[in-house]
Amino acid sequence: METKFSNPIQINRSIKPNSISASAMRSAFSSRQLKPSEVLEECIANIDLYEKHVGAWAFINIEGAREFARELDNKKPSGTLFGIPFGIKDNIDTFDMPTEYGTDIYLGHQPGRDAACVAEMRASKGVALGKTICTEFAHRHPGKTANPWNIEHTPGGSSSGSAAAVASGMVPIAIGTQTTGSVIRPAAYCGVIGYKPSYGDLNISGVLANTPSFDTLGFFANCVDDLVLIRKALLDESIPKIKKLSLKGARVAIATKPYWEEACASSQQMIEEAARVFEDAGAEVFALDDQGVFENLSEWNIEISGYEFARTLAHERRLAFHKLSEILRNGRMADGFRVAFSSYQAAKKNLELLRIKFDEVMSGVDFVICPSAQSAAPQGLDSTGSADFNMAWTSLHCPVISLPVALEKNTGLPLGLQVVGTRYSDDRVIKFAEAVFKCLTN
Amino acid sequence: METKFSNPIQINRSIKPNSISASAMRSAFSSRQLKPSEVLEECIANIDLYEKHVGAWAFINIEGAREFARELDNKKPSGTLFGIPFGIKDNIDTFDMPTEYGTDIYLGHQPGRDAACVAEMRASKGVALGKTICTEFAHRHPGKTANPWNIEHTPGGSSSGSAAAVASGMVPIAIGTQTTGSVIRPAAYCGVIGYKPSYGDLNISGVLANTPSFDTLGFFANCVDDLVLIRKALLDESIPKIKKLSLKGARVAIATKPYWEEACASSQQMIEEAARVFEDAGAEVFALDDQGVFENLSEWNIEISGYEFARTLAHERRLAFHKLSEILRNGRMADGFRVAFSSYQAAKKNLELLRIKFDEVMSGVDFVICPSAQSAAPQGLDSTGSADFNMAWTSLHCPVISLPVALEKNTGLPLGLQVVGTRYSDDRVIKFAEAVFKCLTN
Repeated sequence: METKFSNPIQINRSIKPNSISASAMRSAFSSRQLKPSEVLEECIANIDLYEKHVGAWAFINIEGAREFARELDNKKPSGTLFGIPFGIKDNIDTFDMPTEYGTDIYLGHQPGRDAACVAEMRASKGVALGKTICTEFAHRHPGKTANPWNIEHTPGGSSSGSAAAVASGMVPIAIGTQTTGSVIRPAAYCGVIGYKPSYGDLNISGVLANTPSFDTLGFFANCVDDLVLIRKALLDESIPKIKKLSLKGARVAIATKPYWEEACASSQQMIEEAARVFEDAGAEVFALDDQGVFENLSEWNIEISGYEFARTLAHERRLAFHKLSEILRNGRMADGFRVAFSSYQAAKKNLELLRIKFDEVMSGVDFVICPSAQSAAPQGLDSTGSADFNMAWTSLHCPVISLPVALEKNTGLPLGLQVVGTRYSDDRVIKFAEAVFKCLTN
Repeated sequence: METKFSNPIQINRSIKPNSISASAMRSAFSSRQLKPSEVLEECIANIDLYEKHVGAWAFINIEGAREFARELDNKKPSGTLFGIPFGIKDNIDTFDMPTEYGTDIYLGHQPGRDAACVAEMRASKGVALGKTICTEFAHRHPGKTANPWNIEHTPGGSSSGSAAAVASGMVPIAIGTQTTGSVIRPAAYCGVIGYKPSYGDLNISGVLANTPSFDTLGFFANCVDDLVLIRKALLDESIPKIKKLSLKGARVAIATKPYWEEACASSQQMIEEAARVFEDAGAEVFALDDQGVFENLSEWNIEISGYEFARTLAHERRLAFHKLSEILRNGRMADGFRVAFSSYQAAKKNLELLRIKFDEVMSGVDFVICPSAQSAAPQGLDSTGSADFNMAWTSLHCPVISLPVALEKNTGLPLGLQVVGTRYSDDRVIKFAEAVFKCLTN
């Protein structure tokens, strides 16, 4: 058995403008080959074609987007995301579109202001096309979204709609959020690029809290370069300008902990063969020596996320408990009530030290690779799959990029490979991810 | 010159129910000496008397509070804050009262849900009486509030209304928030107890972000015991039960850095004389050996708060820039645009290590004392005073309690003494604060 590396985005290229990235759009706008309205109409055409099957959207503001795109048509391109349509996960506040947090409790709810990330993307002249489906309060109870590769399979969650919208060419980029694996897993399942930044790098205000100690913005795209654009829009043009990085001489660690044995044969094989390809490209590949970092990590993760989640939803617990799903009440919320404050506090202190220890672990490593999920997207829409392969990196506040690098043989569904960097090294790890993606799929 | 220690709350006792704490109310409810409605009516009577001078409130929900209190009148006391009226700073979301963030931009703005802290306090059967005045976006542009001790003097900010409402007996407790000195300073200026918890101890979701790396809830009260009640309501009954702590043998460090020279003579004298009183009580008192922790702290604080604040207000920057005050635009927001991303990131990394270093500094210290502010409340309502004496502890994520322990001789206005603990030692430092307060003012 051999992994046949391939680029699911390329395979999927019949779907326009899926084959065109935000970065390519920008060039096309600059050279006047395309206008923002033309790109937007392609996005809308894909929505018309696929939305009835995929169900990626909670709200679409076609008229608002058209009006803004038309305004831009007559302007000289300026602004990092000039004319780029984007989707916004529906746990992120928008002042001009309802924000329902994936629950009937907030049907039609209209926030008063944009979340910081939305305002920044709009200030960069991005075109906000709509709100994408989010699982209930970004926990596990799924929304209506199906996987664009096979609508009988889950798109993953909690950023289900953002992943599916990018995968089916309805937008070139979309915002999501990750508390455990809510960006990386759906990116892998839907065969697009997913990016979970270092904790705290990108301002999360205006996003509904799930677990403040872990909540992070995230992004979906079809091209690694687009992640740089997004960072420029949200941080500023002063982010480090890093030239191409080569795999030659790169120190690549394979993480077999935690949970390697849970990975399906295809996923394990993907990693092993990627390692061989990297070695052929001149990288130094070795097993990650985690120095015990993973030992109690999942226990602390559960204590912290449970404790905080039970409290961030205090209002709904008080006034709408019967409207919460069973999986939410019996899942993370129930975890929260089992945890005493002292355990919660101890877990936080332990994790703080662990992150610093992991910085040391990573001092001899350029990036880590491991599967983005246990397998390709599981069949069925009742569950959004497992976040086991994401929990550690999120807890450690590391930047992670999921790359769609192969199709699973039996199902034909995409497999994702995670590229994990040291905390706060996002700009560098994005460049390594670019090299990895090119090396495996070109 | 000698400091005459006194308890401004006691001096102020003619104002009922200022002389009665939440803890005392709870006992009175349990023994059926008082009913929630009676306490509430005393609060309302004080609002009727003083609000026109003090201007503590942005919104008062008298009918809603009366209805809930009457409901409780007929019930057996249950719930940690049973029947306790409380105020809520107006940068904290409430589902049934407008939340205007201290700015005309959001006049009448109605959030869809309660912030976690409000929901928890209501779940504990606290009686939400209204929203208290907040400076513009919890920055420096003041609201209408005056200092109840002398209405020509500032109440401090940004939690101006919460401090003034507690000081004038309109509520026994109130919620505030602190990003630099926004709880401790107004508590000191208004002669009440202020509590800024360890960063992250209390869930801040549903509070408008200012600087996410520093934003912390805070509380105002007339009795140290009330802080324990509040922690029980917001965390859970499993917080450490700590018996009375004595000053005998306590290791007390005096912080003369940073900014000691900025403290007025009365404030310096207050600390020096408190030190003598503690020594008489058997404490070991020494100068804090900060091991260089304070060296670059204020620079990093400004870089982080500027960078984050400029982005948390991205929406207003984009759509309502002309409605922002000059001090906001030219103050923290302008700081933010001067800071490059790399400096911001470096400052965050540096502070993370500094916090761990400060844990070590504090390993031989039970608590630190220093003035809560440079002086008593300055004259004039245009400025809310300086947060220089609070910046370090907030940046270091330490728990801080401000105790009103003296009246300044020239002005007759209260002076506050800060009791600072190691991160995450809140329950212990509250007990030390109790001992300090008793020792100085009994």
